[in-house]
Amino acid sequence: MLVMEKTSTDAFPSTTNSSEKQETVCIFGTGDFGRSLALKMLQCDYSIVFGSRNPQKSSLLPNGAEVLSYSEAAQKSDIIIIAVHREHYEFLKELTEVLKGKILVDISNNLKINQYPESNAEYLVQLVPGAHVVKAFNTISAWALQSGALDANRQVFVCGNDSKAKQRVMDIVRTLGLIPLDQGSLMAAKEIENYPLQLFPMWKFPFYLSAILCVFFFFYCVIRDIIYPYVNGKKDGTFRLAISIPNRIFPIAALTLLALVYLPGVTAAILQLYRGTKYRRFPDWLDHWLLCRKQLGLAALGFAFLHVLYTLVIPIRYYVRWTLKNRTITQATAKTEDPFSTSTAWLNDSYIALGILGFFLFVLLGITSLPSVSNMVNWREFRFVQSKLGYLTLILCTAHTMVYGGKRFLSPSSLRWYLPSAYVIALIIPCTVLVIKCILMLPCIDKTLTRIRQGWERNSKPTSNGQHLKQSSIYLDSPL
Amino acid sequence: MLVMEKTSTDAFPSTTNSSEKQETVCIFGTGDFGRSLALKMLQCDYSIVFGSRNPQKSSLLPNGAEVLSYSEAAQKSDIIIIAVHREHYEFLKELTEVLKGKILVDISNNLKINQYPESNAEYLVQLVPGAHVVKAFNTISAWALQSGALDANRQVFVCGNDSKAKQRVMDIVRTLGLIPLDQGSLMAAKEIENYPLQLFPMWKFPFYLSAILCVFFFFYCVIRDIIYPYVNGKKDGTFRLAISIPNRIFPIAALTLLALVYLPGVTAAILQLYRGTKYRRFPDWLDHWLLCRKQLGLAALGFAFLHVLYTLVIPIRYYVRWTLKNRTITQATAKTEDPFSTSTAWLNDSYIALGILGFFLFVLLGITSLPSVSNMVNWREFRFVQSKLGYLTLILCTAHTMVYGGKRFLSPSSLRWYLPSAYVIALIIPCTVLVIKCILMLPCIDKTLTRIRQGWERNSKPTSNGQHLKQSSIYLDSPL
Amino acid sequence: MLVMEKTSTDAFPSTTNSSEKQETVCIFGTGDFGRSLALKMLQCDYSIVFGSRNPQKSSLLPNGAEVLSYSEAAQKSDIIIIAVHREHYEFLKELTEVLKGKILVDISNNLKINQYPESNAEYLVQLVPGAHVVKAFNTISAWALQSGALDANRQVFVCGNDSKAKQRVMDIVRTLGLIPLDQGSLMAAKEIENYPLQLFPMWKFPFYLSAILCVFFFFYCVIRDIIYPYVNGKKDGTFRLAISIPNRIFPIAALTLLALVYLPGVTAAILQLYRGTKYRRFPDWLDHWLLCRKQLGLAALGFAFLHVLYTLVIPIRYYVRWTLKNRTITQATAKTEDPFSTSTAWLNDSYIALGILGFFLFVLLGITSLPSVSNMVNWREFRFVQSKLGYLTLILCTAHTMVYGGKRFLSPSSLRWYLPSAYVIALIIPCTVLVIKCILMLPCIDKTLTRIRQGWERNSKPTSNGQHLKQSSIYLDSPL
Repeated sequence: MLVMEKTSTDAFPSTTNSSEKQETVCIFGTGDFGRSLALKMLQCDYSIVFGSRNPQKSSLLPNGAEVLSYSEAAQKSDIIIIAVHREHYEFLKELTEVLKGKILVDISNNLKINQYPESNAEYLVQLVPGAHVVKAFNTISAWALQSGALDANRQVFVCGNDSKAKQRVMDIVRTLGLIPLDQGSLMAAKEIENYPLQLFPMWKFPFYLSAILCVFFFFYCVIRDIIYPYVNGKKDGTFRLAISIPNRIFPIAALTLLALVYLPGVTAAILQLYRGTKYRRFPDWLDHWLLCRKQLGLAALGFAFLHVLYTLVIPIRYYVRWTLKNRTITQATAKTEDPFSTSTAWLNDSYIALGILGFFLFVLLGITSLPSVSNMVNWREFRFVQSKLGYLTLILCTAHTMVYGGKRFLSPSSLRWYLPSAYVIALIIPCTVLVIKCILMLPCIDKTLTRIRQGWERNSKPTSNGQHLKQSSIYLDSPL
Repeated sequence: MLVMEKTSTDAFPSTTNSSEKQETVCIFGTGDFGRSLALKMLQCDYSIVFGSRNPQKSSLLPNGAEVLSYSEAAQKSDIIIIAVHREHYEFLKELTEVLKGKILVDISNNLKINQYPESNAEYLVQLVPGAHVVKAFNTISAWALQSGALDANRQVFVCGNDSKAKQRVMDIVRTLGLIPLDQGSLMAAKEIENYPLQLFPMWKFPFYLSAILCVFFFFYCVIRDIIYPYVNGKKDGTFRLAISIPNRIFPIAALTLLALVYLPGVTAAILQLYRGTKYRRFPDWLDHWLLCRKQLGLAALGFAFLHVLYTLVIPIRYYVRWTLKNRTITQATAKTEDPFSTSTAWLNDSYIALGILGFFLFVLLGITSLPSVSNMVNWREFRFVQSKLGYLTLILCTAHTMVYGGKRFLSPSSLRWYLPSAYVIALIIPCTVLVIKCILMLPCIDKTLTRIRQGWERNSKPTSNGQHLKQSSIYLDSPL
Repeated sequence: MLVMEKTSTDAFPSTTNSSEKQETVCIFGTGDFGRSLALKMLQCDYSIVFGSRNPQKSSLLPNGAEVLSYSEAAQKSDIIIIAVHREHYEFLKELTEVLKGKILVDISNNLKINQYPESNAEYLVQLVPGAHVVKAFNTISAWALQSGALDANRQVFVCGNDSKAKQRVMDIVRTLGLIPLDQGSLMAAKEIENYPLQLFPMWKFPFYLSAILCVFFFFYCVIRDIIYPYVNGKKDGTFRLAISIPNRIFPIAALTLLALVYLPGVTAAILQLYRGTKYRRFPDWLDHWLLCRKQLGLAALGFAFLHVLYTLVIPIRYYVRWTLKNRTITQATAKTEDPFSTSTAWLNDSYIALGILGFFLFVLLGITSLPSVSNMVNWREFRFVQSKLGYLTLILCTAHTMVYGGKRFLSPSSLRWYLPSAYVIALIIPCTVLVIKCILMLPCIDKTLTRIRQGWERNSKPTSNGQHLKQSSIYLDSPL
C-alpha cells in the first residue's frame, strides 16, 4: 500500500496525463507545508498557483505549479490557502479588496497551547473582513500528505462560519483522500489549533493518579518489607526493589484504578438519587472523572499485565530458587517432611485461578475498547461488555486479592509497626464500590434511579438548556 | 478529542455565529432523543422546528429551536423526523394532507425483537401513504449524539423506497459526523430495527458449543481425576477443581473449537464435489456454521490463552512445589538419583515448543482478524493468513497434543474405568479434519474442486437465481 | 451485522419495491464477478443491462437484469463495466463507435505481477480511444460484494484520466457501501492491478532479514552449545534444539531487529548532516529501509513475544527440574549449603525486571501501531510514542541483555573455540545505534540537524523537484 502510494507520488501521473483539471487553488507561501500541499493537490488534478513576495526567487516548487505575486495569484482562484505563519499575516490587510468574497483557508498552528488571545483563524477574519475564512489542514503534517498518510491521522478538522465555503474546503479534503470532520463555526478554531499541540490530555489525570499511587505504595512497601526487616533483623533485602516490591505495587495500582473506573458511576447515581433529576450538571471534577474512565481502565490493565509478568517469572528468580533449594536441603538433612495441606492447596489454587480469570476478562475488556472493535458492536452489546463484564472483572480481581490474603487476612500478626499489608489497603476502594453498587441494585432504589434516568424528575420544573441531556444511563454504566 | 468535542458542544458555536443556515428540519416529539438530535443538528447549522401536541408546555428544549403545533411545524420543512414511540403514531393519520410528499424519518426502536408483524417504518407508510418514509438513526443513542460518538458506533443504517429521500437523509447523517450505510429499500427496516436489540447473535452458537464442551469435559475429568482416585485410593483431590481440571478442559476446548473452524470448510468442499456444482445453496446449518467460523476461532483463542496462563502458573502452585520438594527429599534421604533421560527431555521440550509456536500463530491469526488490520490487507494476503497460517496452527496444536501424550499415548495403562485420557478424545476432530484436508489436496481431487469453484458444473443446466454465487473458494478457505 | 446483510441480500428488497431507479449501468460479460456486481447494484437501486455475445444462452443471471447484445446494451447506459478478461478485449474494437464518450470501467486483474507491458486499463484506452476509461473494483472479490464485505477490504482504488468519469464511478462505489480511494490518472493503473497480486510486499525485507538472522545464530549456537560440549565432553545436548537454542536465537533476533528499526533514522541524520540539506533523495536502499521500519519493529515484537513464552516455560521443563533436583540432592547428601549472594540476586532480578519493562513498552508500541489506534492520536502524540518510547524500549532491552551477561560479560572464560556468547554479538548493533543517537543529541549537532530539517541548506541552490520534501524529521523519528 505504502509502496503504491509512493510510486504514484514519484510518477507525477496526473499533472502530465490528465485531460481535465478539477479547479484552480491558490497557495500563499512557499514553505515546506505549502509545497507539500501543492504537490498532493497537483496529483489530484488541481491547478496550483503560488502567491509569493518574490515570485522570481521561489525555488523547490513542484513541477506544474505557477508562481505569481500575491494579488495576481489571488485573482486566479476562489480558494486561497494561507500557508504562512500567523506573525506574517499583516500583508493580507493590503489585499483586502482582492480577497473580498474569496475563501481563505487558515492552516496555521501555534507553538504553544492558547498562545494568542484569539485563534489564528479569527485573527484572519479581523484582518480580511470581506473573506470567508475556513480553518482546515492544521492537524496534517507535510509528511503525511506525501506518504499517503495511511499510518497517521487522516482526519482533517474543518470549521468556518460560511457553510458553502466550508463545504468546498471539505470537498477538497475528501478529494485528497483525507477525512473531513465538520466542527461547526469558527468558534471551534481555537480548539482545532490547540489539538495538534496536545499530548494525551485525557491521560493526564490517570497518569498522575498512577504516579501518586505507585510512589505512595512504593514507600509503604519499602518501610514494611525492607526497612522493618533491616531494623528488626539486620537483613539486607534491597534486592527486593527490582521485582518483589514492584510486584506488590502493580497489583495494588491495578485494582485501585479499576475500582476508580467504577466509583464515579456509582457516585453519579447517588447524586442523581439525591437531586431527584438527571437534568442538572455534575460538578466539573465528576464530569472529568467520568470522561477519563477509559484511560483509567487501560492504565489499570497495564499494571495488571505487569503484575502477571512479574508473577510468572517468580520461579526463575535466583532468590526464589535459592530459598526453595535451601528449605529442601534443611528438611532433607533433618529427615522431616511437611504434611500436605489440602486447605492451603485450595486457597493457593483458588487465588491463582481467580487472578487468571480476572485478568482474562480484563484483557477482553481492553480488546473491546479498541476503536475498530467498539465500532462493530451495537449499544446493547457495548453496555453488556463494559458494564456487566466490567463489574465481573472487578469482583474477580477483588476476590483474588482477598483470597491471596487467605488465612493471614486482617490477622494482627501481619502488622509491622502497626502497618497492615499493602493489599489490605488496596481492598478499601474496590469493596466500597461493590457494596454501594449492591445497594443501588436493590429493587426499590434501582426503580427510582431508572425512572430518573428516563427523564422523570422528583421536583419537576422546566429548564431551558438542553446540554444536560448528556448524563444518560448508558454514559454512566459503560466506562471503557 | 473528546475534550474538543465536549467544548464545542458546550459553546453552541454555530447557532450564534453562523452566517447561513443549511436547511430547516422538523422534529415531531420532544423526548430525550428528539432533543439530543435537535441539539446536534443545531450545532451543525440546521434550523430546527419542533412539532408538539402542547407547544406551550414543552420544556428543556435546546436554545435556538422553535416549537409549534404538528401541522404548523410540518409546513416549515421537507424533512420531518418522527421522534415519538410507535404506539403514538396514530395522530399522524390526521396530518396526511400536510405530510404529502414530505420525507418522514422513522427513528423508532422496539423493546423486543420482531415485536410487531411489520416494521415501524412500514407501519408508518401505511398510516401516511403519500409521504416518503426513510428509516435511520435508530442505532444511535442520545448520548452518542451528544458526546461526539467517538468511542461508540457511528454507523447509521439507512433504508427507504425513495432514492432521493434516502439520499437527503444520508447527507444529513454525514453532516452530523456519522457514517450512513445504505441498506436498500424499506424491506430492510425490520432487520435495522432488530439490530440494536441483538446481543452478539453470531456468538450464540460458539458460546453454547463452548459451554457444552466445557461441561462435558468437566464431568469427564472429574470422574477420571477426582472420583476415580478417591474410590481407588481414598485420595482427596478436590483442590484440583481450581486449576488442574480447568487446565485440562481449556486446551481440549481450544483444540476442538479450532478444528470446528475448519470442519465446515472441508464439509462444504465434499458437498460441492458430490453435487458437482457450486451453484446450489448449502443446507442452512452449514451456512450458519460457515458464517460464525470467526467467532468459533476467537473462542478457541480465548481458551488457548487461558490454557497458557494456567500452564505458566504451574511452578508457583503450592501443590506442585510440595510434590517436587517431597520427591527431592525422599530421593535425598534414599541417596538415589534419577538418571537423565534424553528421550524424555526431547519429548517434553518438543511438546512445549510446539505449543508455544501454535499459540504464537494463533495470536497472529487473532490480530489479523481485528477489523482495522483486516482492512489493510488484500484478498490474497487475507487468504494466505487465514487459510495457510490457520491450517499450520491447527497442525502445530494437534502435534502439541499428540506429543504431550508421548509414550503414554493410547497405552492401555492410562485407561481408568475404560475411559481414555481426555486429550485423546480431543484429538478425534482435529485429526479427522487434517486427514480430509490432505485427501482434498490430492492433485486429482483438488483439480476438480478448483474447476467447480470457478463455475464449472458437472451436469450443467441453467438456473435463474444469482444468490448462490456466494459460495466461493475464498469464502470457504478464510474463516477468521 | 453479517446476518443483517445476508438477509437483505436474500430478500432482494430494492428490485421489487423501489419507486425510482438511480441509473442504468451496463455490464459486459456474464462471468462470476459480473453477476455478483450486478446483484449488488440491483440491491442498491441501479438498473442493470448485461451485454453478452449470446444473449439467449446466458444463464444464472440475477433477477431483474436485462441481457442484450453488446451494442444494444451499450446504448442503454453511459457507464459500461468491462467484466471480461483482458485476453478477450479485442471485440471492443468493433464497438468503438457505440462506446464513444462512454465511461468504460476496467475491473480486470492479471495472474502475475507486471504480466503485460502496459496495464489492462491503458490497453483498453488504446483499443477504444474515444471512451473515458476508469480503473476500479479490481481489489474487490465477488464474495466480498455478496456478503457485505464487512470483514474484508472495502477499499476500492479508482484511477482515470477524466475527472468527471472518475467522479461518477466513485459515486457508484460509495453507493455500494465501499470506500473509493482516488489514485490519480491512469498511470496508477499498473500499480492498482498489481496490488491484489501482492503478498505482503513490505514484509519481504523484514522476513528475509529475520530468516538470515535466525539461520546464522542457529548455527552459531549449535556450534557453541551442542557441538562444543559434545566434542569436549561427549555430552548429548541435542534436546536443546527444541527450546534452549530457540530461546537464544529469538531474543537476539528481537534486539537486532529493534536496533535495525532505529539504525536507518540515525543513518539518514548523518547523511543529512554530511550533505547539509534535506532536499536530496536518500539512496534507494535507505529509502526502502525507512519505509519498512514498522514491519521490522513488528517482527522484532514477534520474536520478543516468543522469547517471553520460551523463558516463562523454563521451570516446567523436565531438564530444568531434573537439574535443580539433582543439584539439591547432591548438596543435601553433602550437607552443604550455598550462601545467599545478594549481588547475584540483584543482578538476576534486575535483568528480569529490565526485560519485563522493555517487553511491556514494546507491546505498547505494537498496540499504538494498530491502524485504528494510530488514527486516534495526533502527530505530537504519535511521535512521542514512536520516538521517545521507542528509544526507551531499545535502551531497556539493551540493558536487559547487558545485565544478563552480568559478571561473565566479555570474560575470556566464556569463550568457546574463541567464539563469544551469542548475546555479546547481539549487542553490537543496538549499542552502535544508541551511541550515535547520543552523539546526534549533543546540542551543537542537534541544532544544525534541526535547522536542516526545517529547510535550511548549507550550500543553498535552487532545485526544481518537489518530491524530495518527503524526508521530514517526523518521518525519520517515527518508525512504527
